[in-house]
Amino acid sequence: MNHTAHTIEKAVKEIADEMRERADRGEVAHYIPELARVDPKHFGIVVIDDHGHVACGGDADMPFSIQSVSKVFTLTLALGRYGDRLWQRVGREPSGSAFNSIVQLEYEKGIPRNPFINAGAIAVTDMILSGHQPREALGEILRFMRFLANDHSVTIDEAVAASEQRTGFRNIALANYMKSFGVIENPADLTLGVYFHQCAIAMSCRQLATAGRYLAHNGRNPETGMSVVHPERARRINAVMLTCGHYDGSGEFAYRVGLPGKSGVGGGILAIAPGKASIAVWSPGLDANGNSHLGRIALEALTKKLGWSIFGV
Amino acid sequence: MNHTAHTIEKAVKEIADEMRERADRGEVAHYIPELARVDPKHFGIVVIDDHGHVACGGDADMPFSIQSVSKVFTLTLALGRYGDRLWQRVGREPSGSAFNSIVQLEYEKGIPRNPFINAGAIAVTDMILSGHQPREALGEILRFMRFLANDHSVTIDEAVAASEQRTGFRNIALANYMKSFGVIENPADLTLGVYFHQCAIAMSCRQLATAGRYLAHNGRNPETGMSVVHPERARRINAVMLTCGHYDGSGEFAYRVGLPGKSGVGGGILAIAPGKASIAVWSPGLDANGNSHLGRIALEALTKKLGWSIFGV
Amino acid sequence: MNHTAHTIEKAVKEIADEMRERADRGEVAHYIPELARVDPKHFGIVVIDDHGHVACGGDADMPFSIQSVSKVFTLTLALGRYGDRLWQRVGREPSGSAFNSIVQLEYEKGIPRNPFINAGAIAVTDMILSGHQPREALGEILRFMRFLANDHSVTIDEAVAASEQRTGFRNIALANYMKSFGVIENPADLTLGVYFHQCAIAMSCRQLATAGRYLAHNGRNPETGMSVVHPERARRINAVMLTCGHYDGSGEFAYRVGLPGKSGVGGGILAIAPGKASIAVWSPGLDANGNSHLGRIALEALTKKLGWSIFGV
Amino acid sequence: MNHTAHTIEKAVKEIADEMRERADRGEVAHYIPELARVDPKHFGIVVIDDHGHVACGGDADMPFSIQSVSKVFTLTLALGRYGDRLWQRVGREPSGSAFNSIVQLEYEKGIPRNPFINAGAIAVTDMILSGHQPREALGEILRFMRFLANDHSVTIDEAVAASEQRTGFRNIALANYMKSFGVIENPADLTLGVYFHQCAIAMSCRQLATAGRYLAHNGRNPETGMSVVHPERARRINAVMLTCGHYDGSGEFAYRVGLPGKSGVGGGILAIAPGKASIAVWSPGLDANGNSHLGRIALEALTKKLGWSIFGV
Repeated sequence: MNHTAHTIEKAVKEIADEMRERADRGEVAHYIPELARVDPKHFGIVVIDDHGHVACGGDADMPFSIQSVSKVFTLTLALGRYGDRLWQRVGREPSGSAFNSIVQLEYEKGIPRNPFINAGAIAVTDMILSGHQPREALGEILRFMRFLANDHSVTIDEAVAASEQRTGFRNIALANYMKSFGVIENPADLTLGVYFHQCAIAMSCRQLATAGRYLAHNGRNPETGMSVVHPERARRINAVMLTCGHYDGSGEFAYRVGLPGKSGVGGGILAIAPGKASIAVWSPGLDANGNSHLGRIALEALTKKLGWSIFGV
Repeated sequence: MNHTAHTIEKAVKEIADEMRERADRGEVAHYIPELARVDPKHFGIVVIDDHGHVACGGDADMPFSIQSVSKVFTLTLALGRYGDRLWQRVGREPSGSAFNSIVQLEYEKGIPRNPFINAGAIAVTDMILSGHQPREALGEILRFMRFLANDHSVTIDEAVAASEQRTGFRNIALANYMKSFGVIENPADLTLGVYFHQCAIAMSCRQLATAGRYLAHNGRNPETGMSVVHPERARRINAVMLTCGHYDGSGEFAYRVGLPGKSGVGGGILAIAPGKASIAVWSPGLDANGNSHLGRIALEALTKKLGWSIFGV
Repeated sequence: MNHTAHTIEKAVKEIADEMRERADRGEVAHYIPELARVDPKHFGIVVIDDHGHVACGGDADMPFSIQSVSKVFTLTLALGRYGDRLWQRVGREPSGSAFNSIVQLEYEKGIPRNPFINAGAIAVTDMILSGHQPREALGEILRFMRFLANDHSVTIDEAVAASEQRTGFRNIALANYMKSFGVIENPADLTLGVYFHQCAIAMSCRQLATAGRYLAHNGRNPETGMSVVHPERARRINAVMLTCGHYDGSGEFAYRVGLPGKSGVGGGILAIAPGKASIAVWSPGLDANGNSHLGRIALEALTKKLGWSIFGV
Repeated sequence: MNHTAHTIEKAVKEIADEMRERADRGEVAHYIPELARVDPKHFGIVVIDDHGHVACGGDADMPFSIQSVSKVFTLTLALGRYGDRLWQRVGREPSGSAFNSIVQLEYEKGIPRNPFINAGAIAVTDMILSGHQPREALGEILRFMRFLANDHSVTIDEAVAASEQRTGFRNIALANYMKSFGVIENPADLTLGVYFHQCAIAMSCRQLATAGRYLAHNGRNPETGMSVVHPERARRINAVMLTCGHYDGSGEFAYRVGLPGKSGVGGGILAIAPGKASIAVWSPGLDANGNSHLGRIALEALTKKLGWSIFGV
């Protein structure tokens, strides 16, 4: 273990210890009944540096519902298939509104603002589905996640998927609203079926941090050398994560943490320190914008300790 | 001149040459009559690296109206006086709408989304004005700009200021609207008087790039060693520039250029490569979002040539 | 035939003649494929006065899809069952926006502005459905229409209903969006099934004018003496028709025609001259707000000729 | 005194007695400091029938600030000068939002929805001002009010006008916002000067009911026989009052009262029973939509007692 790895380990350990003690834990997402049962006491963190050294803290190996963190990977998949044509159907500007806002869709003729709000992610999933059966599309997504996480045990939590399918009325509304503008090509219920399952993928911080390594290292996994995307594309996905990755809390995350990141209502956040590390944190309690409360605080502490903000040395 | 400086010089020269030839130049802002007269053929670029080496191209020494680029510096000034209390009056989230939108103000009770849209910048100027005469406040802003640019010839273009004062109805509306919520403390016309003059500051790319150096180097000018702001504050201003610096084109700028930056309708852009350089470009023609058309293209080419994106090595 | 009846007959005949000749006929609704096939040349008008005298012109007996005109009758039905509790789920203010806007729902937590925009009518149908099978609810609506029209041949055009069910994505979005707020109680597809069928009821101008007579005469049919609703309720339904009956063209209709009325995208309009007559017109071509173009013009001519505006003798 | 007059007198007396006792009085407008001082205990009502019989109750002769009720009269004046060209600058649809909303102006390029929201009334006053000095325009408005009220003692409460001029920031915002779209022709402060003074006209219920008689009787005063506007225009002004006269409570007023009416934040309401009577009520306490709380209740009671709703006999 080199000097840097040691510093990272120390920081991760301190943060995990501090987070364990904190009383303010946010509120667990209650609108997906299955997620509402998760214990808010959990906290996990994993940092994987450029040499592949893994620093863990807390519940680093406990799987959680990655939810919207999956949007980073489906965007990567869809860009691989469609290239820049993808941007004809989804914008890449921050929305200035909540993750499930439908107002913007009416004003902008069904084109979602970016691929990381719900509407945009549903549109991206619809593109992945086109020309396939839902089962195939979902299989492709799951295989991609296992490949990136380098772990074939990654799986879908069917109870969570079923819970969302029963209660995800706002997502059904978003999909049908886009369909009325022709932005969704497949039957809305099929697209949503894939979408709800992709959100229900369960991963641990270790798996998630592993999966994100290509974004930290110019599009390829530095250990295997395997290329996932072109370097420019990796940079651009990071840029979209920075401006749009935390819904209407994206500015706040950039301001406090200073790293590209993507959160999910399951309480997970994937953050990328370009050239340095891939980071996953998990704490189920959310803040008012639907982002992990302690997750953000932990990442702020981490970048401060390690001087990893992309906005200054 | 060291190796890096040489590489920068070459890139700057190539870009200036290429920009001179391009036919697509955007459209000069016409809503401020005085700005509408500027020749769209101008193009200037200056890059100042961490050693203070200056690479110039095109109209690098021709002064232009910095307009909204001034917002970066008034934010810096106001943060110096008010600290984080400033954020009680202005948010730091991207707005998802045009630079002069008033809709968000109605929904959010007069609190502007961020200090880089017009409403937010007017609120910041109002804070600088409080406790002072307009003339004093303006003097303070101008002295700060001269200090940062290390050039006492920086001045205000009174014709531009007068032109805005005569025609800036939307800014008058924004200021009075905020005043109805108590967000503006001073008489709106006094605040606007200072605001219109601050926007009418005329600077060259050389002066602007010099003025921005503290943002590239942890809050201090690396040559003089003079500290302007705390390192953390410099990083955070960069973060707000990244997410909010180009109005409703902020996502696009992050995606294509990958640097924090702030544009003005005069056609100038200040961009920061943290740890590496302060950059100013100027080309008066604007794109649909009110940002310099060629300015953005030049910066995209520059970061590509030099590998300066903050989103990947 | 008394003097007034004669005057009405003459006016109706003149209007029918004039409308037949006009070249400007608006545009047939194209977003419901089945409706797009209707010949825009049709025009029908029927006026039934307080003595039951029927004055007809044009295609008075040709059935057309009543679409949103059905909302007046489902509102009447639901008020009969729920009384003023109905207004806890639906407002009664003009929306200031298009018939299928979803923006207002987001700002007002899923409560539709009034029962005559699509969202509001879907909420009303949901109330009628509660405690019943869709088939029963639909049967009740159809029986009510036949009773009011005094004609058992009134039926549902299944091809139109099927066409809407296949393509009504925006209504599916509205229903699910309201369901996410708990405003819709039943499974959204069941509520929508009833709604699409109610809109697909086919009636002639004669049947529609007959059905509307209770609104012109204090809640009861003056011929049969049968009471449909309390006089106050009839007045209030008329008031909601006046302020909300023509979507974002309600002000225009009140200004030009001066009668309570409800339009449908099938080109039908039911208008009420309180104390005087029930009126139905039909012309399939629509104006920009989705209201019958010639229908409105014919009604304007009628109220002018007969001095029937409720806004002045 | 004929039979009807006697019935009206009785109704008015009963209502005045009932209103005097009620504890719920709404809240006096506090955003205009000068109005905030008015005693919420006041209540006045005057009904003038077609024979000119005057029925009074309560503070019928106490002058109050007519505020937005003035908009009915400036609309009448401006229509007299501009005819239907007026509608190129102002719409006539309900706004679906608050009296001072600015959102709609942004979406509809500065054209206010109707002449009875603040923005629309400012635009109408701007038309009256064009070609005149503010003093002349104001003189014309005041003369018109005195002529209609048949009382030369009608005057402007300068303290109220000054109070609004000092604090009417939102109206200043609206005027400047419209000016940025070219909808306001004159310098905004001049237009607003006239507007604030017109709103500060002080009248008693007796004067106001007298002034409104032309709207109840086809455009002319039935006593003097003097014609104010063409019958069709009177009807149309009534129609706009019905759909837009009570801001975002217009639907509610139509539903409950069933008469065209216009309210002001001073607590006054002018209501028109076409062919029957001109009615003025005053009670300073307002409801959530900025309309007189007891005023609306009194009018609802009156139309119920007298069967005057325009929506049914």
